[in-house]
Amino acid sequence: MDVYEAIAMRRDVRAEFTGAAVDDEVLGRVLGAAHAAPSVGMSQPWDFVVVRDAATRAGFYEHVQQERARFAAGLTGERAATFERVKVDGVLESTLSIVVTYDPARGGPAVLGRHAIADAGLYSVCLAIQNLWLAATAENLGVGWVSFYQEDHLRSLLDIPASVRPVAWLCLGPVERRQEVPDLERHGWRSRIPVEQVTHFERYTRGDGTA
Amino acid sequence: MDVYEAIAMRRDVRAEFTGAAVDDEVLGRVLGAAHAAPSVGMSQPWDFVVVRDAATRAGFYEHVQQERARFAAGLTGERAATFERVKVDGVLESTLSIVVTYDPARGGPAVLGRHAIADAGLYSVCLAIQNLWLAATAENLGVGWVSFYQEDHLRSLLDIPASVRPVAWLCLGPVERRQEVPDLERHGWRSRIPVEQVTHFERYTRGDGTA
Repeated sequence: MDVYEAIAMRRDVRAEFTGAAVDDEVLGRVLGAAHAAPSVGMSQPWDFVVVRDAATRAGFYEHVQQERARFAAGLTGERAATFERVKVDGVLESTLSIVVTYDPARGGPAVLGRHAIADAGLYSVCLAIQNLWLAATAENLGVGWVSFYQEDHLRSLLDIPASVRPVAWLCLGPVERRQEVPDLERHGWRSRIPVEQVTHFERYTRGDGTA
Repeated sequence: MDVYEAIAMRRDVRAEFTGAAVDDEVLGRVLGAAHAAPSVGMSQPWDFVVVRDAATRAGFYEHVQQERARFAAGLTGERAATFERVKVDGVLESTLSIVVTYDPARGGPAVLGRHAIADAGLYSVCLAIQNLWLAATAENLGVGWVSFYQEDHLRSLLDIPASVRPVAWLCLGPVERRQEVPDLERHGWRSRIPVEQVTHFERYTRGDGTA
């Protein structure tokens, strides 16, 4: 699949997972794509935990529902009603999950390019996630990033050491169909803004939308 | 270009920029790819500042050299000698730069999916950067992420408000050739690790390299 096609077809999947099997070779290619991402000082500070175990996923799902309720409790009126329609995860329906973590100790002590920006290692992990997402899209798989969780809860669920930070819980698997419009837009949560609105020239304060 | 091909060919470019022109249409496609990234709560919290001005780039370049010296001062022996061979930016040689920022206020006050993980918005910005990087690769352009800078310095250079965080300074432009091996590996700074070493199954502490 062409790069631009994958970028355009990529969706954050919740409801469309079928639960059908994912071939080990395909999973290997997707993880290989993630691992080929750039990283600060070539530290490659990511780890991937492939979770298929039903009990682990059920435990995480329950936690996600609590966090969903916590977020919902802070909403009122139209926001509360709109959010009620939004599905925030496909943990149980997807074939498997991949938890991506950040290890600040990898490649240390002097990580080239991280002395001025401590978060640069965290940024690298996200680049790997986007590679994974696009490769999965090219493999006709859906990916859904779940962020309704407390990091410490996930640490204890997967025996992640305190020094390592969970960055994402990604649901992965075949989908019955691809949505063309993102869920949150279809459900009326928010509309996408045009790229001109976030493009500036020479200075942050100049050129937005009019240059 | 195929997704996997772009992922494999993508490099972090320093020395190979030619400075040749970049077509506005091509730049538009690359920024469009970045803007098509997933984002927490569909907040699209990124901004892109296209910098061509020679004085701005010269000012940034000077700052980068100071930060380079600061990092070098902390190294000794083999590390110091190896780092001496490493070029950390292509700010002056590349055609233009794109500074990518994060605005936490975008899509607020209640950003869906960010209540438990404050950094989720920052993660979204990085996903956009990787889209940009792969699209540029497909356009036969090189991208080099410079991270030898202080965020406040960059804020003041580009009139970025205090509430907005600079995430990346990306050099962009045509290149005379693509390196197959990353600079830091060629120069002996660090070697890439195999993906098996960072892949685990069911628990973080299980399966690394042996599963």
